[in-house]
Amino acid sequence: MTMQLVCSIEEMRKVSHTLKQAYQRIGLVPTMGALHEGHLSLIRLAKQHADIVIASIYVNPTQFGPHEDFDQYPRDFERDKNLCQQEGVDIVFSPDSREVYKDLHTVYVIETCITEILEGAVRPDFFQGVLTVVTKLFNMVGPDIAVFGQKDAQQLCAIKQLVENLNFPIKIIEGPIIREPDGLALSSRNVYLSEQERKDALCLCQSLDLAKRLYVDNERSAKGIKQAVSDFVGLVPSAKLDYVEIVDGETFQSAHEVGSTAMIVLAVYIGSTRLIDNAFFRR
Amino acid sequence: MTMQLVCSIEEMRKVSHTLKQAYQRIGLVPTMGALHEGHLSLIRLAKQHADIVIASIYVNPTQFGPHEDFDQYPRDFERDKNLCQQEGVDIVFSPDSREVYKDLHTVYVIETCITEILEGAVRPDFFQGVLTVVTKLFNMVGPDIAVFGQKDAQQLCAIKQLVENLNFPIKIIEGPIIREPDGLALSSRNVYLSEQERKDALCLCQSLDLAKRLYVDNERSAKGIKQAVSDFVGLVPSAKLDYVEIVDGETFQSAHEVGSTAMIVLAVYIGSTRLIDNAFFRR
Repeated sequence: MTMQLVCSIEEMRKVSHTLKQAYQRIGLVPTMGALHEGHLSLIRLAKQHADIVIASIYVNPTQFGPHEDFDQYPRDFERDKNLCQQEGVDIVFSPDSREVYKDLHTVYVIETCITEILEGAVRPDFFQGVLTVVTKLFNMVGPDIAVFGQKDAQQLCAIKQLVENLNFPIKIIEGPIIREPDGLALSSRNVYLSEQERKDALCLCQSLDLAKRLYVDNERSAKGIKQAVSDFVGLVPSAKLDYVEIVDGETFQSAHEVGSTAMIVLAVYIGSTRLIDNAFFRR
Repeated sequence: MTMQLVCSIEEMRKVSHTLKQAYQRIGLVPTMGALHEGHLSLIRLAKQHADIVIASIYVNPTQFGPHEDFDQYPRDFERDKNLCQQEGVDIVFSPDSREVYKDLHTVYVIETCITEILEGAVRPDFFQGVLTVVTKLFNMVGPDIAVFGQKDAQQLCAIKQLVENLNFPIKIIEGPIIREPDGLALSSRNVYLSEQERKDALCLCQSLDLAKRLYVDNERSAKGIKQAVSDFVGLVPSAKLDYVEIVDGETFQSAHEVGSTAMIVLAVYIGSTRLIDNAFFRR
């Protein structure tokens, strides 16, 4: 089957409706393009859970703050399309920005607990933008399942809450973090790194290893682990810790003690590039 | 066909899925029960536009403020069910409150323009509650069309914006205001009125008539018309004007001049009962 490219919302609806009438289970993988192995792993996961896989490619303006990298965000549609084709994606959905947000856009989806801290505190528009565009994509595509990566752990947690709280008839599938051989978590923003910064960026995954080692050595104080990570990142010249936190993996609320569902999440500036990473203590 | 009663969200989903696979167009009429001729007219409208009509009956707690009438709101499920049966409703959907809002409910739908004034200014939680529950009902039922009354004009405007901005694949049908023979707009809250208050409540529709008469007499100043209405309501002992405003019917923004799409909206306390009404100038 040749991959189909859909660019209009109305056409997407029609295609989706026809597929549903034919009892095809639709899997959606929402992306902002700049695809890497992380995205491709989500596509493979979608193929396991659905008959038809739709990858959306849309750089969503409303989740970028005014001083963030919306304009510089890497875009290479031809390359992305070829990667989707190679992975056996059935439909690439790439809606036109003027159609996605009309002139008078005044309706948003918000979350008032999970998204208040960490990424939400540092990037005040981010989660409202993400939850709104994900709701829109859900309504445009009407998937049975949708796949999101554990790499954006807080986003994943908020989207699970979105689906559960607003009763979307959609099952969320979680994809594990995909890493380079040396441990760096894949991210579309890794292309911003210079050669030296690429090396320094290892401090993120090394911080997670350090935290897990401390946990294995019976450290259970969040404060102690956070301090150790902070000290460690402080040794890397190009690195500036934005936050490190230990949270409950289900609710994303800060924890004092490292419990059984705890995870460590951190954001670090490497030069001017902001990277995030995370890990569960018990997985 | 006997009317079906559905009380669980999962069953509603299954029933709806089966109907869709059978190419049945689903029409939803969301209500809070306490049905009157206004609701019944919406049901009849739904029957014209859909193969299967689902009336939801759910008194939504999140759209009531802490000092509003959630507890006293009239509830008579048996009567409502019989009225639905008589009107040929196919399915009454009455979800259990504990299932609708789980313990950790943190996701809401907001609107930042239409809903800022009038009802939104007086009732700060109202529109967030309405838009959230309507989104939930849309996702539970998956209707092709949904019917809302022009009586709640600002709500109707916000719901049209919800559907358009969040790309719900749903057509909104508008039902005209249904009135008593003497002009009082039907409302579930009319049962709160004493005999004298019932008479005084006519000042709402009489205010609309007055405004339209002024318009016909070439009055185009919103200020002039509002002042006349305010003076008129001031003459009724049990009445206290909450607001009167002239807005654009499409955007619900206040207007200085009465233009071709203008409408007059007002809210008046009759004793302790708050009633609303509205009219277009050109319809």
